[in-house]
Amino acid sequence: MSPKLTVELLRQLRLAMKNCKYFPEPIQAYIIPSGDAHQSEYIAPCDCRREFICGFNGSAGTAIVTEQHAAMWTDGRYFLQASQQMDNNWTLMKMGLKETLSQEDWLISVLPENSKVGVDPWIIAADQWKNMSKALSSAGHSLVAVQDNLIDAVWQDRPPRPSTQLMTLGLERTGVSWQDKITALRAKMRERKINWFVATALDEIAWLFNLRGSDIEYNPVFFAYSIVGVTTIRLFVDLKRLADPAARQHLQLDGPKGPELSIQVFPYESAHTELQAVCASLGPRDKVWICDKASCALTQTIPKPHRSPIPYTPLCLAKAVKNSTEIQGMKTAHIKDAVALCELFAWLEKEIPKGTVTEISSADKAEEFRSQQKDFVGLSFPTISSVGPNGAIIHYTPLPETNRTLSLNEVYLIDSGAQYRDGTTDVTRTVHFGTPSAYEKECFTYVLKGHIAVSAAVFPNGTKGHLLDSFARAALWEAGLDYLHGTGHGVGCFLNVHEGPCGISYKTFADEPLEAGMIVSDEPGYYEDGSFGIRLENVVLVVPSKPKYNYINRGSLTFEPLTLVPIQVKMMNTDMLTQKERDWVNNYHRQCLETVGAELRRQGRKEALDWLIRESQPIA
Amino acid sequence: MSPKLTVELLRQLRLAMKNCKYFPEPIQAYIIPSGDAHQSEYIAPCDCRREFICGFNGSAGTAIVTEQHAAMWTDGRYFLQASQQMDNNWTLMKMGLKETLSQEDWLISVLPENSKVGVDPWIIAADQWKNMSKALSSAGHSLVAVQDNLIDAVWQDRPPRPSTQLMTLGLERTGVSWQDKITALRAKMRERKINWFVATALDEIAWLFNLRGSDIEYNPVFFAYSIVGVTTIRLFVDLKRLADPAARQHLQLDGPKGPELSIQVFPYESAHTELQAVCASLGPRDKVWICDKASCALTQTIPKPHRSPIPYTPLCLAKAVKNSTEIQGMKTAHIKDAVALCELFAWLEKEIPKGTVTEISSADKAEEFRSQQKDFVGLSFPTISSVGPNGAIIHYTPLPETNRTLSLNEVYLIDSGAQYRDGTTDVTRTVHFGTPSAYEKECFTYVLKGHIAVSAAVFPNGTKGHLLDSFARAALWEAGLDYLHGTGHGVGCFLNVHEGPCGISYKTFADEPLEAGMIVSDEPGYYEDGSFGIRLENVVLVVPSKPKYNYINRGSLTFEPLTLVPIQVKMMNTDMLTQKERDWVNNYHRQCLETVGAELRRQGRKEALDWLIRESQPIA
Repeated sequence: MSPKLTVELLRQLRLAMKNCKYFPEPIQAYIIPSGDAHQSEYIAPCDCRREFICGFNGSAGTAIVTEQHAAMWTDGRYFLQASQQMDNNWTLMKMGLKETLSQEDWLISVLPENSKVGVDPWIIAADQWKNMSKALSSAGHSLVAVQDNLIDAVWQDRPPRPSTQLMTLGLERTGVSWQDKITALRAKMRERKINWFVATALDEIAWLFNLRGSDIEYNPVFFAYSIVGVTTIRLFVDLKRLADPAARQHLQLDGPKGPELSIQVFPYESAHTELQAVCASLGPRDKVWICDKASCALTQTIPKPHRSPIPYTPLCLAKAVKNSTEIQGMKTAHIKDAVALCELFAWLEKEIPKGTVTEISSADKAEEFRSQQKDFVGLSFPTISSVGPNGAIIHYTPLPETNRTLSLNEVYLIDSGAQYRDGTTDVTRTVHFGTPSAYEKECFTYVLKGHIAVSAAVFPNGTKGHLLDSFARAALWEAGLDYLHGTGHGVGCFLNVHEGPCGISYKTFADEPLEAGMIVSDEPGYYEDGSFGIRLENVVLVVPSKPKYNYINRGSLTFEPLTLVPIQVKMMNTDMLTQKERDWVNNYHRQCLETVGAELRRQGRKEALDWLIRESQPIA
Repeated sequence: MSPKLTVELLRQLRLAMKNCKYFPEPIQAYIIPSGDAHQSEYIAPCDCRREFICGFNGSAGTAIVTEQHAAMWTDGRYFLQASQQMDNNWTLMKMGLKETLSQEDWLISVLPENSKVGVDPWIIAADQWKNMSKALSSAGHSLVAVQDNLIDAVWQDRPPRPSTQLMTLGLERTGVSWQDKITALRAKMRERKINWFVATALDEIAWLFNLRGSDIEYNPVFFAYSIVGVTTIRLFVDLKRLADPAARQHLQLDGPKGPELSIQVFPYESAHTELQAVCASLGPRDKVWICDKASCALTQTIPKPHRSPIPYTPLCLAKAVKNSTEIQGMKTAHIKDAVALCELFAWLEKEIPKGTVTEISSADKAEEFRSQQKDFVGLSFPTISSVGPNGAIIHYTPLPETNRTLSLNEVYLIDSGAQYRDGTTDVTRTVHFGTPSAYEKECFTYVLKGHIAVSAAVFPNGTKGHLLDSFARAALWEAGLDYLHGTGHGVGCFLNVHEGPCGISYKTFADEPLEAGMIVSDEPGYYEDGSFGIRLENVVLVVPSKPKYNYINRGSLTFEPLTLVPIQVKMMNTDMLTQKERDWVNNYHRQCLETVGAELRRQGRKEALDWLIRESQPIA
């Protein structure tokens, strides 16, 4: 991986920063966040502005360019990758390390007095704008909205915004019609005396209307906004997409309809002006809900007395708790996904000794096996297929120049998942095809202990996921080890593989309590720079638990693994496991064997079945 | 315990709320927080306004009175106590339960449109003012500052503000002179380009000047403010206290002194006007540090552009990390405290069968044994001495009408501590003098497992205490049990028994990372309403740990118990303990025996020594 050369780009950007065509006065710094106007984590090529300017293409990072400096902040998953992708015009700011300055503090430390810091108000979230603006003002600087994006101004061949075909999902997939979802949303609005709700997150809009798209790779979403009032529904999309009769029928755009559940459609670009029109008609006490993570531009369109920002929208909360149709779909998807992975591992065992399997070809093979499964749509994120030292790059994606050959001598980590029409998967297994070292086994076993500690945890109703994070780390900590990422994220149902508002991470405090029906990942790891990476990830469903007692009738919860792929026993130092942990492993493997075995038999996949049977044998 | 009758008081308060002598317009609600003008947790009798108006005398709680309603918010420690102390004019608002409205939401739900909500701006913290004001405005109401306290207006025989003699502490107690503390504070100010620092927390002022007082029971502090500039030091206290030659000498008020380290003294009441004078002289870029938990009145005295609010002051942070002199003092104090408790338990065993020991007489006896120890000053908080069902009232203090007799049939919980000139103690033991039931043992053992899980935890440098909270709960959770309080708080050195900025609680996220030298409590519990309470508390010191590995050279920490009082083996179901837990108990008891045994021998306390030897026997 050679770094992107950015001398010329930075020169042009700095010229634009002084060009009064974009802002009346010169700006001394320009912030390039990684998101799009919907604050998406994964973004379309036309929105990859931070990657364009600095070369780093991980999913999280913010670049800031001043007249003298260029710096890029990212988290522990990406330290290695970012340092390899950026040239020496850029300083890597390692978030989460004590010595690393925050963006605000760094700006204050490098800016001349009375500086202007520019940002595209559509790309920066309202809450980030607020914090940044406050910090800068307190030091005598100011944050200013530059309406034309300065990266776009220097980006010669920027791709167009995608507009893919919409896919409609019926009740057999979603369990709830979009009409009922609108009605439930309005009930929440009534409860809180809210008159309008502005939806800006693409997965929330897709979920609300039971529609999917493929505008953004890996995430089955489409570019849209929606404004829901007490009696009106506005949907903003590229109108060409609505020529499709299936979509028109699904949204009931033609023919008779009740007035409160009829959708008015508008071009995608008119969300701003329509919101202005809505706001112009507000009564003195009318309130508009908008997520505090929505864009600063759209948020500030709502006059402050009418604005009611919320950390998580009612759609985000409703979407997180899967209904029984969705849970069944997720289970089915995970069984198919496990079939594909059993195939992959059986195939790898056979092929690796020939010395022809690489990180890329293994990832491709995994995709091939997945694509053979019913209702496969695509991958849910770029496959992390990493051998030996590449495994220590937490969100590594193999490139031709880094592509390493799988061998009998190195640890192999594969973190992959798919979108099926019935659900989304995300699974990580770390395996060795030869003989792992005692140290590799030791580290793997700490990670396994952490994985089990979370998966088997019993906790009261109302517990927030961040309170479980330390369970995943206790065994590593005791050995003096750790990992620099959270333990789990929410997972959508045929939607984004990362979703809020729940998760398991030391970094969040504002997460919503876990509830039965929520689905999260459980994925502790350990990474030894230059040597190997270990991660063990299952997607797990929050389910009621029935412990011995029921303190003040609060009820208890635990997790049920949806991912059903054996965990390699060869990588375990089973002497380090407690009896309870051994029982967990054996019980898990029995479930894998029963459920996935039956499907492998049904699909007549003999080799994969043999592999599954062998890998699911109980440990003593 | 019979509830306080409040009909007449509420009538008078409601009249005052409409009296234009206090505020030009009638106010529809009045908030009575529990603190004083220094936001102290424990307060002097003259500041017990919330207790005066509603009867509830726990350490935490906020009362709000409207024209129609009176409600009082407190946390899980106090639910039972508050419900017993308040009459039916009051609604108990149980904080931490999902269904309980916040103060803001409750006000919004009960107030007529456009209401004014009054509060004494000296009593409410600036951050609370801000949040409350914002929430009320968003609903069309307003929070207003009522300068005269309305409780004082209806409180006939309100006691005067105390002004006790100041005690000076030399280097042999503090390790660092007040001059060096001022210099270190100014270095922090320079680093952050801060010109002034306003100290309002009583323990911070006591710590800074190496002075102690006894204005507030249990907390060796004195009423004061301080304003530290780059070249000046202002101390605001009742000037009568400075007639004492020892205090004058200690503060170097007379004779020659360097200008930068000379203290100007002012009357306590003049802090406000002096701060106004300081602020009037500020340069355009001058900044003033003040804790965001300082009073709204004092905070708002600083013009906003100059105000730099911080969640924890540099004094709070410096005070939390004990130096070697303080650590040695805390260790000595805890050995003496253990001697007193060994005496108590030996005495209880002998006396209880006679049927004459009550909760109150046991607490008194504990105080008597403590008072026999060198440098004893007083208790560090009201002793919680509780038998059977009283143990389930988390912060119970025995009163004549609730006083229960200790017997061979009920669990006894004693949570007590003292102030010695060398340190502060806080210890809880739960014991049974007869035969505990299998269920009591089971619950005790879950609590013990939680206590050990925290005490033995190894965690990386930089870890915040709240990340350890779940370790204390895991065993209870697995059985479906829990406790409704945090697991630990910071402990001062001959200072407040509760101090920030560190702690171990699911409720906090803004705590500062644990550092070697910090001292916290480790006190999980379990409470069965109407039956018994269990809590197991040691004060523990954060110390470096040397695990097998040292991930990215971060270093690791663990805890060393300072409290050295045996944990009753009779209460344990040792079959439920892992080998590691058994080893921890045996190792802990060996330390108790060695360290406290030597002191008991030195003091010639034979019966207590015999008790200690018997109670420290290893478990199999």
